[in-house]
Amino acid sequence: MSQIQEIHSKDHVEDSLRQVTDIISRQKLVESLVHKQEGPRHDLVEALVHKQNLVELQKKLDLLHPADVAYILEALPIEDRLLVWELVKADCDGDILLEVSDAVRESLIETMDNRELVAAAASLDTDEIADLAPDLPKDVVQELMKSLDAAKRAQVESSLSYAEDSVGGLMDYDFVTIRADVTLEAALRYLRLMGDLPQHTDKLFVVERNGRLIGTLPLKRMLVHDPEAHVAAVMSDDPVVFHPSDEADDAAQAFERYDLVTAPVVDAKGVLVGRLTVDVMLDFIRAKAEADMLQVAGLREEEDMFSTVWKAAKNRWLWLGINLCTALIASRVVGAFEGSIAQLSALAALMPIVAGMGGNAGSQTLTLVVRGLALNIISKKNANRLMLKELGISVLNGVVWGGIMGVVTYFLYRDLPQALPLALVMTAAMLLNLMLSALAGYWAPNIIVRLGHDPAFGAHVLLTFITDSMGFFIFLSLATVLL
Amino acid sequence: MSQIQEIHSKDHVEDSLRQVTDIISRQKLVESLVHKQEGPRHDLVEALVHKQNLVELQKKLDLLHPADVAYILEALPIEDRLLVWELVKADCDGDILLEVSDAVRESLIETMDNRELVAAAASLDTDEIADLAPDLPKDVVQELMKSLDAAKRAQVESSLSYAEDSVGGLMDYDFVTIRADVTLEAALRYLRLMGDLPQHTDKLFVVERNGRLIGTLPLKRMLVHDPEAHVAAVMSDDPVVFHPSDEADDAAQAFERYDLVTAPVVDAKGVLVGRLTVDVMLDFIRAKAEADMLQVAGLREEEDMFSTVWKAAKNRWLWLGINLCTALIASRVVGAFEGSIAQLSALAALMPIVAGMGGNAGSQTLTLVVRGLALNIISKKNANRLMLKELGISVLNGVVWGGIMGVVTYFLYRDLPQALPLALVMTAAMLLNLMLSALAGYWAPNIIVRLGHDPAFGAHVLLTFITDSMGFFIFLSLATVLL
Repeated sequence: MSQIQEIHSKDHVEDSLRQVTDIISRQKLVESLVHKQEGPRHDLVEALVHKQNLVELQKKLDLLHPADVAYILEALPIEDRLLVWELVKADCDGDILLEVSDAVRESLIETMDNRELVAAAASLDTDEIADLAPDLPKDVVQELMKSLDAAKRAQVESSLSYAEDSVGGLMDYDFVTIRADVTLEAALRYLRLMGDLPQHTDKLFVVERNGRLIGTLPLKRMLVHDPEAHVAAVMSDDPVVFHPSDEADDAAQAFERYDLVTAPVVDAKGVLVGRLTVDVMLDFIRAKAEADMLQVAGLREEEDMFSTVWKAAKNRWLWLGINLCTALIASRVVGAFEGSIAQLSALAALMPIVAGMGGNAGSQTLTLVVRGLALNIISKKNANRLMLKELGISVLNGVVWGGIMGVVTYFLYRDLPQALPLALVMTAAMLLNLMLSALAGYWAPNIIVRLGHDPAFGAHVLLTFITDSMGFFIFLSLATVLL
Repeated sequence: MSQIQEIHSKDHVEDSLRQVTDIISRQKLVESLVHKQEGPRHDLVEALVHKQNLVELQKKLDLLHPADVAYILEALPIEDRLLVWELVKADCDGDILLEVSDAVRESLIETMDNRELVAAAASLDTDEIADLAPDLPKDVVQELMKSLDAAKRAQVESSLSYAEDSVGGLMDYDFVTIRADVTLEAALRYLRLMGDLPQHTDKLFVVERNGRLIGTLPLKRMLVHDPEAHVAAVMSDDPVVFHPSDEADDAAQAFERYDLVTAPVVDAKGVLVGRLTVDVMLDFIRAKAEADMLQVAGLREEEDMFSTVWKAAKNRWLWLGINLCTALIASRVVGAFEGSIAQLSALAALMPIVAGMGGNAGSQTLTLVVRGLALNIISKKNANRLMLKELGISVLNGVVWGGIMGVVTYFLYRDLPQALPLALVMTAAMLLNLMLSALAGYWAPNIIVRLGHDPAFGAHVLLTFITDSMGFFIFLSLATVLL
C-alpha cells in the first residue's frame, strides 16, 4: 500500500515555491558567471546548465496542482513568473489562468498568442470559459465560440448574460439528472455506465420529462436505501433552489446557513438550468471579503505585487484624489479661523484631536452598520433604535473622553489666562463632534446603499470628510465665540 | 408529486422575520389597548389574544431551520428576542445557540437555568459541545461532561484541548471508516446497515487495523465502479490530510485551493483522529473576514445590535483610548511649533492635509502588505523588492499630489509675502511624508507579525500615529527653518 502523500497545505506549497525560486536563482548565477567569460565553450556550458535547470524545474511544476502553480506565479517577480509560465503553459494553462488573480492573469495573457489562448480556454468547462472570456481579446473569444458545439456555445452565452455576482454568473452545467419513476438499482446502473461523476456531485437532480425539477437524490441516500426502492420514494422534495438572477451574496449566505455542497438552479418555470457548488461559493466569499478590505483602503482592484510602479499608482489615485479634495475643504474650514488661531496657537495643536476622535468613533459605528446592512439585520423597524443606541454611546464617549481631554487641556495650558474656558471648549467640542460622528457613521452607509452603491468604498470618505470638517468647525467656532 | 418548496434564501428568511415582528407588534398593540381598560373581562380577552398570537408565532417558528431562527433572534430587540427564545428553546435550542453570534448567545444563555443548558448541549455532537462549552457556566460544563459516555467525553476533551483557530478545534468525529481488503459490494452492504451517513459524507476513510489512514474512498467512485472491485483498488491513496495542530487558516486555504468537501485529520503517527468539513471551513472564513473588518475599526468583538449602550461602549473604549493617546502625542508635536503657527496661521490650515494624505496612502500600502502576509505571498526573497516598489509609488504620488498642493497653496496664500516658500514647503513635506508613510505601511504589519500578533488591530493605529506625528513634524519644522 502506498504511503499517504501529505499535501500539507501551506508548508507544501511554500516548499514548492522555495524550490522553484532556488532553481531560478541557481540558473541566474550560472548565467552571470558564464557571461563574464566569452567564447564558444562557455556558450555551450551555459546552454547545457540552462537546459538542465529547466528540466528540473519543469519536473517540479508538473507534479503541482494548478492552484499551487497559480500561487507560485503570484509570488514570483514578473520575469521569473514568465519563465515558469513558459514551462507550464502547454499543459493545464486554462486551469491556472482561472486560479490566478485578475492582475496576474493579465500579465500572463499578454505573453500568449491567439492560438495558445484558444487552446487554453477550449480545455475548460463552459462556465469557466465564461469566467475567463472578459479578460480575453475579442477575436480570441470569437474564435473560441466558433470552435464550440451549439449546446456548449449556448451555455457560455447564457453564463455571460448574467452579472458576475449573480447566481447565473457562478453556476455550472455539470449535473446529473434522473427521472423519479426509476428504481435506485436502475439509477446505479446508469451511473456505472457514465463511468465518472462531475466534481462535487453529492446529489442527483430529479426532473420531469420537460426538465422541471421535482427533487434531489443525495448520493448518501442511494447508498443506504434498498436498491428496489424508487427514486420518488427516496428523493428529497424540498431542496434549496436558486434562480439565475438571485444575488450571489444571498446564495452564499444560504450555502452557509443550510450547509449545502451543491444546489440546483431553476428558471421561472422551475426548469433546471444549472448548478451551484460550494467550492465556487467559497471562492466567492473569500474574493468578496478581500475586495471589501481593499475597497476600504480605496484600492479599486487587487494589485499584482510585482506590477510596475506606474500601474500600481493608477490603481490608487482616484481615492487619493478624492481624499485630497475633502482634506482641502477641511483645510479651508480651518483657514476661516486663522484669525483666532493667530491669537491663540494652542487651538492648532488641539483641533486635530477633536477631528481624529470623531473619525475613529464614527468608523466604529460605520463598520457595525455596514455589517448589519450586509447581513440584512437592519430593517426599518429596528433602524431608529439602532441609531439612538449609537447616539447614546457617543454621548457616553463624549462625556468620558471629552472630560479627560478637558482636564488634560487645562493642565497643558494652565499658564495661559484662557486655560479654563479652553478646557471647557475642548470638552464641549469633543462631545458634539462624537455625537455628529455617530450620526454620520449611521447615515453615510445607509444613504449610499439607498443610492444603490456599495458602502465599502464611499462611506469612509464621506465619514472622514464630515468628522474632519465639522470637528474643526465646531472646535474653532466655539473657541472663537467663547474665548 | 409535491411542489418544490423554495427556500429562496434572503427573501425567505426576511419574510419570516417580517411575519414574526408583525405578530409580536400585533400582540403589543392588543396589550396596550387592553391595559387602558381595567376589569376581569379584559384580562380574559388579553389572555386569549395573547395565547392565540403565541400559538401562531410558535407554528411559524417550528417550520424554520435553526439557522433562520438564529438570524431572526439576532435581528430582534432584546425583549422580543427573549419572547421568541422562550417559544423555540424547548426544541432545537442547542443548534440555535451554535448558530447565533457570540454576543447574542450570551444574552440567550443568561435566561436559561442549568437544567435547560445541560439538556440543550446534550443534544449536540461532541465537537459542537466543545464549541459551546467556553460560553457555558462552569458547573453546567461539569454536569454535562458527567452525562456523556467515556468515548464522547474523550472527544469533547480532545476538542477543547486544541486552540479555536486550529484544525483540532474545528474537526468533528462523524466519519465512516472502512478496510482496504473488502469489496465495494461488502462496503455498500455495510453502509445500508448503518442506515444513514453523517452530514457532508462525500468519502469514506480507509484505515488499517491500528487506525492508520491509508486512503479515502469517494462515494462517487463506489457508485461508478464494479461492486466486485476491492476498496484498495478503487480508493485514492494520496488524499489531502491535516494535523490537529495545523492552523485553521491554512486548512481553509487548502479547502479553497483543492476544492475539498471533507478531509481526514491524522495524528503524528498517521492515525485517523477526526474530519474537517467544508461547511465548518466556510463558517470559519466568513467569521475571520468579519473579525478582520471589525478589528480594523478597533471593535474587539462582534456586538449584539441591541446590547446596552454601556456594554457596547466598553467594547470600543480600548481602541478610542489608544487613539486618544496617539492623537495627544501628535498634538504635542504641533504644540512644539506654536511659535511658528502664531506667526503664520496658514500653517495650521495646511498641516492636516500633509498628515491626512500620508495616512491615506500609507493605509493602501498597509492593506496590500497585510493581504500579502495573510496569503503567504510575501517572502524574504521578494520583500525588499516590494518595499522598493511601494517607495517608488510614494515618490510618484509625492511629486504629483505634492506638486498639485504646492500650486494650490501658492494661489490660496498669494497675498502673503511667504507664498512661494510656503508652497515649496508644502510640496516637500508631502513628498517626504508620503515616502515615510510607504515605509510605515510596509513595516508596521511586518513588525507586528514578527512579534507574533495579528496586524489587523495594531498596524493601523501605529501607521496613523506615525503619519500624523511625523506629518506635522516634517511640515512644521521645514516651515520653521525655511520661512
